[in-house]
Amino acid sequence: MRKITVQFEPEGRKVIADQNQRILDIAEESGIGIRSECGGKATCGKCRVIIQDQSCVSELIDAEKKLLSESEISEGYRLACCTIAKGDLVVEIPEEGRIRVRRIQITGMERPVKLEPLVKKFHVFLPKPTLHDIRPDVERLLEALESEYGISEPELSQRLLSNLPDVLREKQWDVTAVVWNDKKLVAVEPGDASNVLYGFAVDIGTSKIVGYLVNLLNGETEEIVSVENPQIAHGEDLMTRISYTIEGEKNLQRLQKLVVGAINSLIKQACSSVGIATKNIYELTVVGNTAMHHFFLGIQPKYVSYTPYVPAVKSPLNVKASDLNLAVEPEVNVYVLPCVAGFVGADAVGDVIASGICESKERSLLIDVGTNTEVFVGNSEDVLSCSCASGPAFEGAHIKYGMKAVTGAIEKIEIDSGSLEISYKTIDNEPPVGICGSGILDGIAGLFRAGVINNRGRFNKIDSERLIQHNGQKEFVIAWGNETATGKAITITQADIGEIQLSKGAIHTGVAITLRRRGYTKEDLDRIYIAGAFGYHIDPLSAKILGMLPDIPTEKIKFVGNTAITGAKMCLTSKETREKAYALSKKIRYVELAVDPDFQKEFVNSMYIPYKQIEEYPSVIKLLSKETKSE
Amino acid sequence: MRKITVQFEPEGRKVIADQNQRILDIAEESGIGIRSECGGKATCGKCRVIIQDQSCVSELIDAEKKLLSESEISEGYRLACCTIAKGDLVVEIPEEGRIRVRRIQITGMERPVKLEPLVKKFHVFLPKPTLHDIRPDVERLLEALESEYGISEPELSQRLLSNLPDVLREKQWDVTAVVWNDKKLVAVEPGDASNVLYGFAVDIGTSKIVGYLVNLLNGETEEIVSVENPQIAHGEDLMTRISYTIEGEKNLQRLQKLVVGAINSLIKQACSSVGIATKNIYELTVVGNTAMHHFFLGIQPKYVSYTPYVPAVKSPLNVKASDLNLAVEPEVNVYVLPCVAGFVGADAVGDVIASGICESKERSLLIDVGTNTEVFVGNSEDVLSCSCASGPAFEGAHIKYGMKAVTGAIEKIEIDSGSLEISYKTIDNEPPVGICGSGILDGIAGLFRAGVINNRGRFNKIDSERLIQHNGQKEFVIAWGNETATGKAITITQADIGEIQLSKGAIHTGVAITLRRRGYTKEDLDRIYIAGAFGYHIDPLSAKILGMLPDIPTEKIKFVGNTAITGAKMCLTSKETREKAYALSKKIRYVELAVDPDFQKEFVNSMYIPYKQIEEYPSVIKLLSKETKSE
Repeated sequence: MRKITVQFEPEGRKVIADQNQRILDIAEESGIGIRSECGGKATCGKCRVIIQDQSCVSELIDAEKKLLSESEISEGYRLACCTIAKGDLVVEIPEEGRIRVRRIQITGMERPVKLEPLVKKFHVFLPKPTLHDIRPDVERLLEALESEYGISEPELSQRLLSNLPDVLREKQWDVTAVVWNDKKLVAVEPGDASNVLYGFAVDIGTSKIVGYLVNLLNGETEEIVSVENPQIAHGEDLMTRISYTIEGEKNLQRLQKLVVGAINSLIKQACSSVGIATKNIYELTVVGNTAMHHFFLGIQPKYVSYTPYVPAVKSPLNVKASDLNLAVEPEVNVYVLPCVAGFVGADAVGDVIASGICESKERSLLIDVGTNTEVFVGNSEDVLSCSCASGPAFEGAHIKYGMKAVTGAIEKIEIDSGSLEISYKTIDNEPPVGICGSGILDGIAGLFRAGVINNRGRFNKIDSERLIQHNGQKEFVIAWGNETATGKAITITQADIGEIQLSKGAIHTGVAITLRRRGYTKEDLDRIYIAGAFGYHIDPLSAKILGMLPDIPTEKIKFVGNTAITGAKMCLTSKETREKAYALSKKIRYVELAVDPDFQKEFVNSMYIPYKQIEEYPSVIKLLSKETKSE
Repeated sequence: MRKITVQFEPEGRKVIADQNQRILDIAEESGIGIRSECGGKATCGKCRVIIQDQSCVSELIDAEKKLLSESEISEGYRLACCTIAKGDLVVEIPEEGRIRVRRIQITGMERPVKLEPLVKKFHVFLPKPTLHDIRPDVERLLEALESEYGISEPELSQRLLSNLPDVLREKQWDVTAVVWNDKKLVAVEPGDASNVLYGFAVDIGTSKIVGYLVNLLNGETEEIVSVENPQIAHGEDLMTRISYTIEGEKNLQRLQKLVVGAINSLIKQACSSVGIATKNIYELTVVGNTAMHHFFLGIQPKYVSYTPYVPAVKSPLNVKASDLNLAVEPEVNVYVLPCVAGFVGADAVGDVIASGICESKERSLLIDVGTNTEVFVGNSEDVLSCSCASGPAFEGAHIKYGMKAVTGAIEKIEIDSGSLEISYKTIDNEPPVGICGSGILDGIAGLFRAGVINNRGRFNKIDSERLIQHNGQKEFVIAWGNETATGKAITITQADIGEIQLSKGAIHTGVAITLRRRGYTKEDLDRIYIAGAFGYHIDPLSAKILGMLPDIPTEKIKFVGNTAITGAKMCLTSKETREKAYALSKKIRYVELAVDPDFQKEFVNSMYIPYKQIEEYPSVIKLLSKETKSE
């Protein structure tokens, strides 16, 4: 029987399956959860999946036509129990069809700021026009704003102007003006509406989009919402999505539409949960990496992916909501945080803002680990930044049993240095399906600590039933087949270790070069901030053993979570913070690693575990000697 | 046989016809030209007319379905030779179906200005990015504009940004930036495009829309185009159109769409005639009366029509072309000239600018005669303005044989004071169909001068075959039935004279009160400017005899034509003029006639011909005594 590869999104898991099976069966066999209430009898319509390219599946059947809407069918929806896989294909499991939910850290550290949103409300009573006072509607409003609140000649769009006459008269010249930055009218509302003022902060992650609905009258986050980034249907990683935009003229618009649609759904969800109208959101702030930033703004992103990787723009931007089709009032301002460089985006600027490294005398290192890992080094005097091509291994890609951090992923591994016995923990304590990034780091660190692999990442010759040979490659068994959801053993292979060495080596290189350029040694560092969804879950000891982080005391390491979104929130509530963000984007100096003379050598040394010069890692030396002693 | 009324637009002529005739026949009988090459055999498809309300006509026949497109049919197009009139109806003859073309003065006096358009082009070569110069695309462009031309941080829209990366690279970083007012990027074009820079000035008249395509590199008007205002289908006069917007929620949008569509067709026509692309128009300036101004901007106009007649806005506005759906590049600025008050619109401000009365020491009176007649009195020190409700009589409305100034209209009349013999001139020297405004003024002035009517406008008891009685009303025959295109006599009736007395009386009242408020006597006036399409054709002597103008020497009267459009053009080519326009809108004081204590009395006196106190019109006294002598 012919084998086919089915890739399930958004988890990104690829499974090998027999041809001519139902997608529901392939998913179940592989431990991938798809909802089904009727048990695959084509009656409940719950096992919805999206298949963009339907050339490799069976044709739509009547049961599907009955259970799916026409618009769903045109979007590629199928029922997994009615669809036979004929060849390699990609199956997206939409939110509603999913059982296993991906775990992403959506909140982050937040510093208190002086509450001073840029958008404010001003309640005014206007004098009614008479034959002796024939001032036009606009002048009447603007003169009242000026005399009562000192707001001088704010900009007024044609759109607001167009129905201003009716709005002013609706409650007999009693109105509330919404003014942005003391210089632009965002809305004019009848009566006294000054007690409702919300903003929405958004983090557009490559995988997940997170939104904070913030009450701008008190600075409280009243609702946190998130959704998978639907662009994932056009590529798991940024480069695939950028390639997609190059393939077709309309594709960039499609990606923009997807992200805007997702943000709009978050806005509606958050507003309905808090019980306000979407028109009560008067400003948005947005962060994202440079590619997401460009996609969101509909800016041609391809040159970000070509050397010398220049973005179209790095300054902060203020865009009208209607120019982006956001589901708020048309004149609402959308503040997009600045970027630093092609691979150090607005999300990283959010990290810097939330962590406060640029405002503190403390000498800090900030790392946001991802496919590209952003690194910042410095303090209030000077901050340098670089981007490390750490690749997707931490996300489970290119790792034999790698997977994202979803239900059933092994997220923690401990290896007994003596017996090599293994204990692990899976997400949601479900039978293991694969290993996610934090688990792999634990596993490899444990293998090194136990002497199973050497400092070049090669398996030592040891005697253990867990060290097996498969297709000519050494693999170390983490979970035996009888423990797993799939019935197959889950291992860490020689190739997996190599992938992780490349990834952690890239980060070490960037950190080392940037520290050096800033004139710091690792001993100078007062603090390491680990930001971002992935970083939140890694074990600092494992990261140190592998040499991913410099060898500094664990208590100096602070896991700050999704600071991209908290940075965006701080810009929403604080004018001062926004001014700082602007200053930051000008101040932070970007280090282009590729042209650094030390880069090659440093990278080679950084591939070792923890590092070629192990004396740089005294705590690891100490740990290893302890292990040796206890053996 | 039942009689029906058919109103033909845009001429506005109402004809009484027998029911159940073809529209083509009704038109022909009444001397209204509709094209027809096949002579009404339903084969040429040239006799197109638009009938909005088809409840009173026969149903569409196959020949029409064949000769009209589906979209035309949905717009109400019919063939006049296939359509039977069953009841009262309005028939619009579109441009293409029309033989008789309305004559409107579309050009006007223009004063030389210092050429300094707000929109300029800057050609720059940008350094190519390298790994050592990773400045983003935007910063690269803005820094070059600043260092080479001193343009500091111009605003850049999301739309321009979105394809900037491709534009910059298209000709290897050789680009031309189009900058508005040194502060906003309008477009970025590949290569050196600095030798093409156009603007478009528009006058939105109630009846006609006029456009000037202006080369902003030398200030020359390269093309003048005009089209009937298609809003006419929803009402000949402003008030009917405003009522239409109140009747239905979408109606304001419909009127806006019609005017924008007409302007777009003018833009395309002008560009194609000069051989440039529409994207080479980099700014527009627009004038129109306050209602047209509001319609164009999609602003609720209804309060302009209710006391105290306040407009939504009077300040000059800068609006993005894309916000108005204009067929130029989205970021192009549209400058809308300021208004003075509800009935003194941007078109009148155009008149003031073009005439220069606010910049001169000369004490001037400026009159733009129309349904509302705008009056300005003053000089560089101070200018007052008012609006007179002169009504539509000058346009031929409410006048028994009145018509607009189209082919066949009697536009000049001379009455021999002795014999009462009449000579007249028609437009295009065609057999007369009716009398247009200038003809009526001549006629009534002539009747007064010849002693046929007295100073209260009543027919004297005289013996003339021309003075007839019809339905109990006295009428004076201007053209006998055997001279006219319709076979019926054309007359001036007692009621017609009353209408003209009301109209001219309103103007005299406004002029008298405003002169008095300004502290001028008529002897103080150095100059009278008669602006506007209608004013251009009136005979100054007739106007003086009727008391429509003050009695000042004819050589002081200057007919300046459509100065609304030339004012718009001057604002297009001159930054200084635009600043003056802004200052004007703040400086000009509006006189509300309705609350002036002298209004009632002045109006009653002004109804007399030329005026109750005839000693105010010494030249008329002199003329009358001459007539008497010569008798």
